Amino acid sequence: MSAYAEATAVTPGSRPGFFTATISDRWSIGSRPNGGYLLGLAGRALQQTLPHEHPLTVTGHYLSPPEPGPATVEVETVRTGRSVSTGSARLLQPVGEDGAAKERLRVLATFGTLVPPEVDSAGPLYLDLAAPELPPVQECLSAEVPLPSGETPTLMHSVDLRLDPATAGWALGRPSGQARMRGWLRPADGSDPDPLFLLLAVDALPPTVFELGLTGWAPTVELTVHVRARPVPGWLRVAVSTRHVASGQFEEDAEVWDAAGRLVAQSRQLARVAPVVAPG
Amino acid sequence: MSAYAEATAVTPGSRPGFFTATISDRWSIGSRPNGGYLLGLAGRALQQTLPHEHPLTVTGHYLSPPEPGPATVEVETVRTGRSVSTGSARLLQPVGEDGAAKERLRVLATFGTLVPPEVDSAGPLYLDLAAPELPPVQECLSAEVPLPSGETPTLMHSVDLRLDPATAGWALGRPSGQARMRGWLRPADGSDPDPLFLLLAVDALPPTVFELGLTGWAPTVELTVHVRARPVPGWLRVAVSTRHVASGQFEEDAEVWDAAGRLVAQSRQLARVAPVVAPG
Repeated sequence: MSAYAEATAVTPGSRPGFFTATISDRWSIGSRPNGGYLLGLAGRALQQTLPHEHPLTVTGHYLSPPEPGPATVEVETVRTGRSVSTGSARLLQPVGEDGAAKERLRVLATFGTLVPPEVDSAGPLYLDLAAPELPPVQECLSAEVPLPSGETPTLMHSVDLRLDPATAGWALGRPSGQARMRGWLRPADGSDPDPLFLLLAVDALPPTVFELGLTGWAPTVELTVHVRARPVPGWLRVAVSTRHVASGQFEEDAEVWDAAGRLVAQSRQLARVAPVVAPG
Repeated sequence: MSAYAEATAVTPGSRPGFFTATISDRWSIGSRPNGGYLLGLAGRALQQTLPHEHPLTVTGHYLSPPEPGPATVEVETVRTGRSVSTGSARLLQPVGEDGAAKERLRVLATFGTLVPPEVDSAGPLYLDLAAPELPPVQECLSAEVPLPSGETPTLMHSVDLRLDPATAGWALGRPSGQARMRGWLRPADGSDPDPLFLLLAVDALPPTVFELGLTGWAPTVELTVHVRARPVPGWLRVAVSTRHVASGQFEEDAEVWDAAGRLVAQSRQLARVAPVVAPG
């Protein structure tokens, strides 16, 4: 079992659609579990409840900051159909003295069936986008490099992320001024990326706004991921970009390509940014 | 009251968060109410239930084809906070002899407060995107032009849409081969566009894949809209593009700009396309 499968494992509870889980402390940025990882955890519970195996489109709204530790996931089956099914999931954690359940994340998702890569040979009917050009893996910057805060996120021990140095100026105190980041990504344990791993992959790079010198906390309000194909084994390439930062909010788009050069996921999130410009 | 406000009006029912509504037949493509219009209807019910007025991010999953006529909207308040609140909405219609409620659309949304345009003078902190260059309104193609089917959608009498002729080759049987479309848009009754109108605006242009010669039905699976600012009165400019058509699915991104040249909404939808190429 891969480390990601283990970290997103859910155990069926007493009623259908109810699961217990443990939010791992090994997929965090600082003290906070990564938002893509949490989406993967909710996605696992949806996968085990709905009649279709693969996430096609998954939206999460982040409601309160989660912490590593016990959690429950409650899945509501919204609709089941022949080719797709839709479900909603709530990720909850006990808080306070009385252990009352507090909702961390609400998810709405449609699942379907993605064909195996080996029978997906026709290629896209239309593609107006190119996989990012990246220097070889060994020439990229290991993301075990500390954040501006000086700390290495535990997430960076669970994934192997190699940033294109051209987009990692922030790490050297020289942000590029372009809200773009790109790099190689794979599970650190050498396991193969699967569709649920893509829910994490789209959110695994540092925030694009670091390259604008905005190195504060950038909490996600909402994240939507489209899984477009099942990845082949090997390195993923991830390109993240932001077009618009205004009124304390920005969107961040990610595209994920597999080792065969296929576009396997697209995502967009809405996040908040503190209007503080770091020196640098 | 604008025609759009009327078409999206909801009447509070017997319990908080329950509303009755009528799905109008004047915002349809063929016999099917436009997906953005339905999102606006659900958005109206959310607006009347949540403590915040403006949609910031709204996701709809389309579950079954709706019809003009009676409907109900049930809103669940997921979380209320100081600056934002989150809710879920179900759009239902009675079907069959027994009038059992069938769910048409499930929505998950976070609302907040957008400042009025006149105090939003700082401009974006970062913008890596340009408003579309369009010919003057009078040189654009009125979208009252019939669809490939020969029919003019009722939607095109409710909005005033003027397509850039460079992106409307499909209407003349000469699709450009580029999955992009752009045009001017405003409510046909001369009313001012508001944040809820933007939920429709992102979905009001013909499908981008028409320009690839794919003129069949392109049903939306999921549509997510980020409202980034309150529009000033006047024409909107809308640019829609698709980057990837594969395995019978495509994404469609829209950007909406107001008459002051401000980016007011971004959207992405996942839709299905029949793998049939029209003669052309």
